Amino acid sequence: MPTIKKILVANRGEIALRVMRTAREMGISTVAVFSEADRNAPHVKYADEAVCIGPPPSKESYLLGDKIIAVAQSLGVDAIHPGYGFLSENAGFSKAVKDAGLIFIGPSPESIEIMGDKLSSKHAVASYNIPMVPGTPDAITDRVAAKAKAAEIGYPILIKASAGGGGKGMRVVEKEEDFDEQMDRAVGEAISAFGNGSCFIEKYITKPKHIEIQVMGDQHGNVVHLFERECSIQRRHQKLIEEAPSAVLTPEIREAMGVCAVNVAKACNYYGAGTVEFIVDENLNFYFLEMNTRLQVEHPVTELITGIDLVKEMIHVAEGKPLSIKQEDLQINGHSIEVRVCAEDPMNNFLPNVGTLQTYVRPQGNGVRVDDGIEEGMEIPIYYDPMIAKLITYGNDRTEAIEKMIRAIDEFKITGVATTLPFCKFALQHEAFVSGNFDTRFVGLYFTPEVLAPKADETELEIAAVLAATLLKNKNKPKAADNGSQTAVNTSQWRTNRAKLR
Amino acid sequence: MPTIKKILVANRGEIALRVMRTAREMGISTVAVFSEADRNAPHVKYADEAVCIGPPPSKESYLLGDKIIAVAQSLGVDAIHPGYGFLSENAGFSKAVKDAGLIFIGPSPESIEIMGDKLSSKHAVASYNIPMVPGTPDAITDRVAAKAKAAEIGYPILIKASAGGGGKGMRVVEKEEDFDEQMDRAVGEAISAFGNGSCFIEKYITKPKHIEIQVMGDQHGNVVHLFERECSIQRRHQKLIEEAPSAVLTPEIREAMGVCAVNVAKACNYYGAGTVEFIVDENLNFYFLEMNTRLQVEHPVTELITGIDLVKEMIHVAEGKPLSIKQEDLQINGHSIEVRVCAEDPMNNFLPNVGTLQTYVRPQGNGVRVDDGIEEGMEIPIYYDPMIAKLITYGNDRTEAIEKMIRAIDEFKITGVATTLPFCKFALQHEAFVSGNFDTRFVGLYFTPEVLAPKADETELEIAAVLAATLLKNKNKPKAADNGSQTAVNTSQWRTNRAKLR
Repeated sequence: MPTIKKILVANRGEIALRVMRTAREMGISTVAVFSEADRNAPHVKYADEAVCIGPPPSKESYLLGDKIIAVAQSLGVDAIHPGYGFLSENAGFSKAVKDAGLIFIGPSPESIEIMGDKLSSKHAVASYNIPMVPGTPDAITDRVAAKAKAAEIGYPILIKASAGGGGKGMRVVEKEEDFDEQMDRAVGEAISAFGNGSCFIEKYITKPKHIEIQVMGDQHGNVVHLFERECSIQRRHQKLIEEAPSAVLTPEIREAMGVCAVNVAKACNYYGAGTVEFIVDENLNFYFLEMNTRLQVEHPVTELITGIDLVKEMIHVAEGKPLSIKQEDLQINGHSIEVRVCAEDPMNNFLPNVGTLQTYVRPQGNGVRVDDGIEEGMEIPIYYDPMIAKLITYGNDRTEAIEKMIRAIDEFKITGVATTLPFCKFALQHEAFVSGNFDTRFVGLYFTPEVLAPKADETELEIAAVLAATLLKNKNKPKAADNGSQTAVNTSQWRTNRAKLR
Repeated sequence: MPTIKKILVANRGEIALRVMRTAREMGISTVAVFSEADRNAPHVKYADEAVCIGPPPSKESYLLGDKIIAVAQSLGVDAIHPGYGFLSENAGFSKAVKDAGLIFIGPSPESIEIMGDKLSSKHAVASYNIPMVPGTPDAITDRVAAKAKAAEIGYPILIKASAGGGGKGMRVVEKEEDFDEQMDRAVGEAISAFGNGSCFIEKYITKPKHIEIQVMGDQHGNVVHLFERECSIQRRHQKLIEEAPSAVLTPEIREAMGVCAVNVAKACNYYGAGTVEFIVDENLNFYFLEMNTRLQVEHPVTELITGIDLVKEMIHVAEGKPLSIKQEDLQINGHSIEVRVCAEDPMNNFLPNVGTLQTYVRPQGNGVRVDDGIEEGMEIPIYYDPMIAKLITYGNDRTEAIEKMIRAIDEFKITGVATTLPFCKFALQHEAFVSGNFDTRFVGLYFTPEVLAPKADETELEIAAVLAATLLKNKNKPKAADNGSQTAVNTSQWRTNRAKLR
C-alpha cells in the first residue's frame, strides 16, 4: 500500500490552501502550481515548493494537465489532488496521472467518465431503482402516446427541446387542455432555434429544492454517505448559501436519500469523495439529477456536522486504505451553514467586481471558519472564479448557526471590492430562509437590489431635521453673523453626545 | 423573567471580545469599559458603546466595581458579565451589582463567598461524600496520633505548616522511619519562617494530574456537568495547555467525577458556569481541590466537544431561564486542545516579553479557533496578564486535534514579542504528551530552553561544508585573483538550485 509523502495540488485559491492544510497535518509535503497572475497568492507561499506553470487564463496554466504531471514527476511527487473545477472531473487527466505512475486523489477515470455524461450515468444506475424525474426517455414522435404519458406523469409537465439549452424550446404545461398548444409552440421554437423540433416531456417540479448527499467510497467496495447539504439558495445555478443538515428532511427521507446516493456510487464503482445531487419537490419526493465526482465547494458544512475531515479521508482512500468510517458510526451533530463570499456586486446584477482588497479582516471566534486564499492588499485576478472566501459557521442548532453567521458577516470587513455578503445577510434574515420553507426560486422571488439599500441612520435624520429647522428659522430672521456658527454648535453638540456614548 | 437587552462586559482582551460576540449573536447590545492603556484595543472597537474608566493598573480601572456599576446604570445596561479574573470572583461586586438593580452574569454572592474560602467550601460539601486528599483536618499536637494517622493515610505523606505558603515548612515523608526527623525539620522551618510551628499532614500525590469538571446550573436548582478538562501542563500553577476530554479517564471515572462536581455545585446552590477542580493520582483516584465560580480561560475546549456555547447558557441562566440542556442529552464529540499564547519567552525562563506586535497573522482553516483581543501593530500593555491569544483546535479524535494544533502553531505568525508557542509545539510533540501519560511535573521533567534551540538547516550545513572545503583547498593553493569569486559562484549555485525547487 503506497504512503503518500508529497502531494501536488493542481488548483489555486481557497481549495488549494484547504487541501495543503490537511496535507501538512498529515505530515505530507506540498507542491503548489501557479499561474503568473497568482505569483503572490497565499497558496503559493503556503506550499513547501511552488512552480509557475504559465500565464493566465487557465487554459495556459491550470488546465495544462501534461505540464502539471511533468512538474509532479520532476519533484518526486506521489499524488495529485485536483481540488474542484479545472481538471478535477477530467477523466483523461485522472488517467494520465495514473499512467505517469502517480496517484490521483479522486475517483477512477471510469467513474468520472460514467458520471460525466447524463445518458451513461442513467444507464449505469438503471438496475438500482434510483428515482428519476418522471418523463419520456426518448424524443416524442407520437403525440397521442406523449399526451397519455403526460397524464400518467401528472401535470404540470415540462416540454424540453432535445437539442435545447438556455431555456429555449422549453414550455411548462399546467393542464391537459393546454398540451397541444404548448407542444406546438415548443416544437416551433425548437425548429427555429436548433433546426430540430424533437422534444422530451418531463414532470415539472414547481418548487424545487436542490439537496445533495455527500458520499465517500474506498477501493475495497465500501461506500458511506455523510448526510445531505441543502443548496437551494442559488442564482443562475450558482450556489450562494449551503447548509447541513436540511431544515426540512425527515430522518426517513434522509435515510432513503443516503441509501440511494450510496447505490449511485456503487453503480459506478466509486471511490473517493463524491456528491449525488437530487431535486426535491415540495412533498419531499426526491429525484436523482447527477453525481459530481470530486470534492465540492460546500464540503465544509459536512465536515462540521460529522467531524470528518473529508480531504484526509480522500488521501487515505487514495493510498488504498479502507474507509476509516462506518455508516453506523456517522451522526449529525449540530448545524452548519456556508456562505460564498464572491467579488460580485449584488446591487449591480451580481456582476464580477474585481479590484484590490483594501481591507480584509476575517471574523473570528466560536463556531466561525473562514476558508480563503487571499490576503489584504491583494488584487483579485480577473481570470478566475470570483469566489474569494467561504464563510462557514457551526452552531448547536440551526438558529444558532444562523445567529453566528449574521454576527460573522457583520464582523467581516472587506473594502475595495463589492461582495455577496450583503445579499447573504439579507437571505439569512429572510422569513423564508429562517422557516426553512424555501426553494431554488428564493433569489428570484425575494431579492431585488432595493432590499439592500442603506437606511438613513436615525441620528443623521435627527441632525438633518435640526439643521433644516434652524435654516428655516434663520431664513425668516434678519441675517446675523453668528447664526451659522450657532447651527454648527448644535450639530456638533449632537455628535458629542453620541461620541460620549461610544 | 427579565430579558437582557444590554450587557456591560467588565473585562478586557480576549474574554471581553468572546463575551461580546455571543451577546451580538443573541441580539444583545454591548458596552465595553476600558483603561487608558486599552483605548485602541479590539474589545473597545467591537462594543456598541465604550467608556474609559481610568488609567492602568487595574486597581485604578478594571477593579473599580462602583465606577463600573455607575457606568452601567448611566447607559441603561441590564446585566454585567465579569469575564474571568478582575471582579469575577468578588462576592462584594456580585452583591453590589444586584443591589444596583442589575443582573450579575454569574453565581450568587453567597456561592462565590462559600467557594472562595477553603474551609467554608470544605464545610459546605461535607455532607455530599466528596473525596478530599486524605489528611488531618487540624494542626497536629499529638505526635503519636499524627504518626498513626500518617500510617493510615499511607506513605508518602506531606507535612505542611499551618501558616505556610510558597513551599516553606513543607516536607515530603517517604516512609515511617523518616517521620520524626522530617516533622522536626518542618516544625523548625515553620517556627523560623512564620513564628508558628503547627503543622498538618496530608497524603502526598506523587504524580498529580490537574483535571477539572465544567458545571452549569440554573436558578431553579438544576445542575449539569459538561465533562472534564485536563489541565496538567502547567508552569508555576499557570496552565499552559488544556484539552477535553482527558486522554486517560475511563467512562466510569468521568461519570463519578461529574456526579461529584454536580454535588459540589449543589452544596453551594450554584447557578451559572463554574469549574470544580480535582487532583488525580496515577491510579485515577480523584480528590476535590476547589471550585472556581466563574467562566474559565480554557472553557472553549468544552464548547467544542459539547457544542454548547457556555456564554449563551450563562446569559440565559442569568435571565432566570431554566438550563437549555439536560445531562442525558450531553455527549462528548471529538477532541479539543487549547494552547495559551502568552507574551512570555520560553527561552528566558518564561519572562514576560511585552512590546509591539509587528506581525500577527492568525492560523485559519478546518478545526482552528483563535480567541484573542489584539491586532497586528498593537503594543502589548505591560499592566495585564501576558496571555495574548488562545489557540484552540478541534479534531475527530485526539491525534487529529494534536495534528491540527501543530499545523496551526506553524501557521501562526507572530513577531515583535516572544511567545509560548514554541514551548507548546515542543510539548505537543513530546512522547509523554502524545501518550497521555503526563502530569503536572511535565514542564519540570522535560522542558529546558535547549530543546527549543534552532537546529541548523541541512542545506546551510551543506553550503558551509562546500565553503569550508573550498577555502581549505584555496589555502593550499597558490593565490589567484579569481578563487574567491569561484567560491561565490558555487554558493550562489546552491541557492539557485534551492530556489528553483521552491
